[in-house]
Amino acid sequence: MIGLGHVGATVAYTLVTKGIADELVLIDTNSDKVVAEQYDLMDAIARLDTSTKIVVQDYAALKDTDVIISAVGNINVIQQDGDRFGELKFNEAAVQEIAPKIKASGFNGVLINIGNPCDVVTAYYQELTGLPRNQVFGTGTFLDTARIQRALGNKLGVDPKNIGGYVYGEHGESQFVAWSTVTVNGRPVGEIEADYRINYEELETDSRRGGWYIFNGKGYTCYAIATCAVKLARAVLADAHLAAPVSTYHPGLGTYVGQPAIVGKNGIESLVFLKLSELEDGQLKSSAEFIKQKFDGLNRP
Amino acid sequence: MIGLGHVGATVAYTLVTKGIADELVLIDTNSDKVVAEQYDLMDAIARLDTSTKIVVQDYAALKDTDVIISAVGNINVIQQDGDRFGELKFNEAAVQEIAPKIKASGFNGVLINIGNPCDVVTAYYQELTGLPRNQVFGTGTFLDTARIQRALGNKLGVDPKNIGGYVYGEHGESQFVAWSTVTVNGRPVGEIEADYRINYEELETDSRRGGWYIFNGKGYTCYAIATCAVKLARAVLADAHLAAPVSTYHPGLGTYVGQPAIVGKNGIESLVFLKLSELEDGQLKSSAEFIKQKFDGLNRP
Amino acid sequence: MIGLGHVGATVAYTLVTKGIADELVLIDTNSDKVVAEQYDLMDAIARLDTSTKIVVQDYAALKDTDVIISAVGNINVIQQDGDRFGELKFNEAAVQEIAPKIKASGFNGVLINIGNPCDVVTAYYQELTGLPRNQVFGTGTFLDTARIQRALGNKLGVDPKNIGGYVYGEHGESQFVAWSTVTVNGRPVGEIEADYRINYEELETDSRRGGWYIFNGKGYTCYAIATCAVKLARAVLADAHLAAPVSTYHPGLGTYVGQPAIVGKNGIESLVFLKLSELEDGQLKSSAEFIKQKFDGLNRP
Amino acid sequence: MIGLGHVGATVAYTLVTKGIADELVLIDTNSDKVVAEQYDLMDAIARLDTSTKIVVQDYAALKDTDVIISAVGNINVIQQDGDRFGELKFNEAAVQEIAPKIKASGFNGVLINIGNPCDVVTAYYQELTGLPRNQVFGTGTFLDTARIQRALGNKLGVDPKNIGGYVYGEHGESQFVAWSTVTVNGRPVGEIEADYRINYEELETDSRRGGWYIFNGKGYTCYAIATCAVKLARAVLADAHLAAPVSTYHPGLGTYVGQPAIVGKNGIESLVFLKLSELEDGQLKSSAEFIKQKFDGLNRP
Repeated sequence: MIGLGHVGATVAYTLVTKGIADELVLIDTNSDKVVAEQYDLMDAIARLDTSTKIVVQDYAALKDTDVIISAVGNINVIQQDGDRFGELKFNEAAVQEIAPKIKASGFNGVLINIGNPCDVVTAYYQELTGLPRNQVFGTGTFLDTARIQRALGNKLGVDPKNIGGYVYGEHGESQFVAWSTVTVNGRPVGEIEADYRINYEELETDSRRGGWYIFNGKGYTCYAIATCAVKLARAVLADAHLAAPVSTYHPGLGTYVGQPAIVGKNGIESLVFLKLSELEDGQLKSSAEFIKQKFDGLNRP
Repeated sequence: MIGLGHVGATVAYTLVTKGIADELVLIDTNSDKVVAEQYDLMDAIARLDTSTKIVVQDYAALKDTDVIISAVGNINVIQQDGDRFGELKFNEAAVQEIAPKIKASGFNGVLINIGNPCDVVTAYYQELTGLPRNQVFGTGTFLDTARIQRALGNKLGVDPKNIGGYVYGEHGESQFVAWSTVTVNGRPVGEIEADYRINYEELETDSRRGGWYIFNGKGYTCYAIATCAVKLARAVLADAHLAAPVSTYHPGLGTYVGQPAIVGKNGIESLVFLKLSELEDGQLKSSAEFIKQKFDGLNRP
Repeated sequence: MIGLGHVGATVAYTLVTKGIADELVLIDTNSDKVVAEQYDLMDAIARLDTSTKIVVQDYAALKDTDVIISAVGNINVIQQDGDRFGELKFNEAAVQEIAPKIKASGFNGVLINIGNPCDVVTAYYQELTGLPRNQVFGTGTFLDTARIQRALGNKLGVDPKNIGGYVYGEHGESQFVAWSTVTVNGRPVGEIEADYRINYEELETDSRRGGWYIFNGKGYTCYAIATCAVKLARAVLADAHLAAPVSTYHPGLGTYVGQPAIVGKNGIESLVFLKLSELEDGQLKSSAEFIKQKFDGLNRP
Repeated sequence: MIGLGHVGATVAYTLVTKGIADELVLIDTNSDKVVAEQYDLMDAIARLDTSTKIVVQDYAALKDTDVIISAVGNINVIQQDGDRFGELKFNEAAVQEIAPKIKASGFNGVLINIGNPCDVVTAYYQELTGLPRNQVFGTGTFLDTARIQRALGNKLGVDPKNIGGYVYGEHGESQFVAWSTVTVNGRPVGEIEADYRINYEELETDSRRGGWYIFNGKGYTCYAIATCAVKLARAVLADAHLAAPVSTYHPGLGTYVGQPAIVGKNGIESLVFLKLSELEDGQLKSSAEFIKQKFDGLNRP
């Protein structure tokens, strides 16, 4: 786990409290914070049924790990700017510092990036670690999709787990819900929109409003995003071939962008190409274009 | 869950992510924070195998709950004073406000208090809710005991879960490790102290230092204490008859104080009286006396 | 848990080993078997992180339970006849004996039936307990659907959890895969059948063959069916509003039959009507007709 | 998992249903049974939150596994003779066949034996695989200890998890409860025996009677023993340094025998020498002597 802010610490806690990780390496630029989390987690182990060995600040130990999760960021920047791109400069520098150390460790597993702007940072990690593209992906729109599942599920009194479909594109403003892919208990949402008076804009607003409530009330989000990251990490560890919308390289569009893919022990096992509407295809292209520009604008060292 | 600071939110997250609670009521004086946690938790449910209904700010809903966990506090006060009693005035007022609402709801389950100073606040909750003494207890020295288990386990290369024995007394400065009760893999620690060069003072320092590292690095502790509270809540829900050191009423000493007890569906099912050394007996009395003075000094309305 | 054959015992074990049930009532006509399972489960509790109280042979204790799972049956009959209807006579008598006792206990929760022939036995339970229809349902084609998910998932290298769609109809010979409802990673299977050379008959054969392998190799099936039943029980306990194909009353067809429905704290919260093909509609009607005939043929006392 | 009788299959199911194993290799002389269990487990995966890859009959795949659990046996022999030694001849031959294949695979992890007579079979596995002694151990008296925890816990209304102490010696008739090591909620049982009218013989009878009830009612035991084996396997996987009574080599006594030891990633990390009473020391020697004789009597090829 690289980066122990609110998200990184929650991921670490989840891996420990659910007994998922047998060994956990915690790394952060703030050594006091890392040691604090290490002790807070170690003190919990006497009360759990499982055990996790917790190592700190040791890049060399990454060599033998199966998965690295990076949640580097600077929440203060976002809080000021209210924009995920506020963190770009900070994370650009962070990746420049971290990626070579990962490379030097001999790590050859799967790197999952949570840090924002997620698509650009993920692509940059891939470039600077030199790992194959399938071994580096981002949480992308996996959280955004969960939020639409929550919003639609709540509206219809349906378990969010029974809502299918995906949010595509940038984990940011240019993302969009591909409504043509959305199903409710197996029915295309279009079939029931009249009966249930589904207003797509309202739902997207509700989904976004949830994020805003969280940001407004606690200044950051951690539980849902950590849950998403842990689910992806487990899919890699167990080679689950989970279909999930993540930030991965789209060959046709020439960039990392949020899209459904199959996640397994090699990271991205394959992409899932759903038939999108013409409008959605256009939205995906625009979103990809936006990411590409940001990526091209990085100040490579 | 009453009080959604770092600890309360972590308890709520743990109950959701481990699928322990089917329904969760979140209450806090800061409504924005409650709604933020509600949404951050709801957004996670699409990615979990379990479901939890999350209700906010509804004291009336407490009527049918089995367990209330209270983690009310004001971390800012501690951070300034570096002393758990810094929070007393704040929590005294909080209990005066909350307890009557719990009473009015008709709640007749088990109330577990985490808020500090734990022993005094727990006793005050019992007084003001009018619940039987067995139905109100505090996390007390359950965390402190976990820390000694961690420190001793680390020193000896032993799973902390295989360290027996308890920290007694106040969840605060006057607490003490009852070394006469401590066992390592079933052996009294006294039997092995020479072989392993066990220095009791050093271990207590190490245990305390861990707490200090956590406070220094993150400004609060949350994961271990939340894990302790969740373990106690599960023991109540499943009537587990778990032996654990908690803050409960000691009839001989006439006060709430940290001591081992059996936790089950009625809260405290019975007390566990271990044979302490004379020195330890004295330490327990002093610690109890200290708690009693603080409790008597409350400004009852 | 009523009926402690291979399936019932596995359900009980799963509820204990995963810490799902705080209290479990075990009932079977064979008291020696019940006590054997009780002790085998109780001996496990010292090694688990959770606790479950296990009560035996006590119908009165059902009054306060949330869920009854019935797995009554006589495997010897099936083994001879190789047909689920071989058990009908046996289970007809069993329901006549058990249902009045459930009724007498004052039970007002949700009854989930696993016993075969599932649809007929479930309907009979509903009739004789007098519980509302929504509170009595059967595992129906939930297992059959899992098998198609497994077969299709294996063929395509996809996590079975990413296969959508349902098997409808009788949990027996007249069931059918509603291919028009099946999706793979969110894509209708029809869209990819050419690319992946999907042969529907082959898949159905593979799915059935799996069941046959199990029966041939161990004489009964227990793990997958128990996992299905536990998932449904958890959906009730947590009011999850899970969409699942179960045996429930179809008002249009006038009988219990396997179809997707929403499972929550009231049992069946609502039905899910997917647009089936004309062929599938016909198959559902035939299957329902078959069940109805069998149900009408019961020798009511 | 080698040997897929009731115990082996239950271990496999537990590893799958709790998501502990990412990959599982199932091996048995009865190929139909292995394939049956494989399909019954695979059919469950669509209903679980985790994924496990299940491979069958592939000794070569053992090379990369961390833990082998062997539960080879022939229940029919026991049922006739009512004695664990009834299985010795059968398991002697089984080990002669299996051990060389394990060796040939290049396996260098930890082998946990459940098969009976446990101590002799474990020792024989160690001899024939040529693995270091610490890497081969047996479940030994871990189950017997759980049974005494259950019996004493039930009598006193105490969570079995709060009963400390161990059963030593052979996993068979010559075993004994080392009462001098037993604690109840941290108190030596001797301190409370008068207050609670504890009759040691009665408790041992109750503990054994439980086993007899299980055998009488279902003809075999599976849930508790599987739970014990899984707990030991997890301790190895997570390097938990768990203290547990297992069958391991006692240098002073020159044989495998049930005694407390520390279980971690290397198998047995160290032994735990508790101060036994003179009587108990004698019982341990006798039991060890008995095991040694049986081991020396094996018909080595």
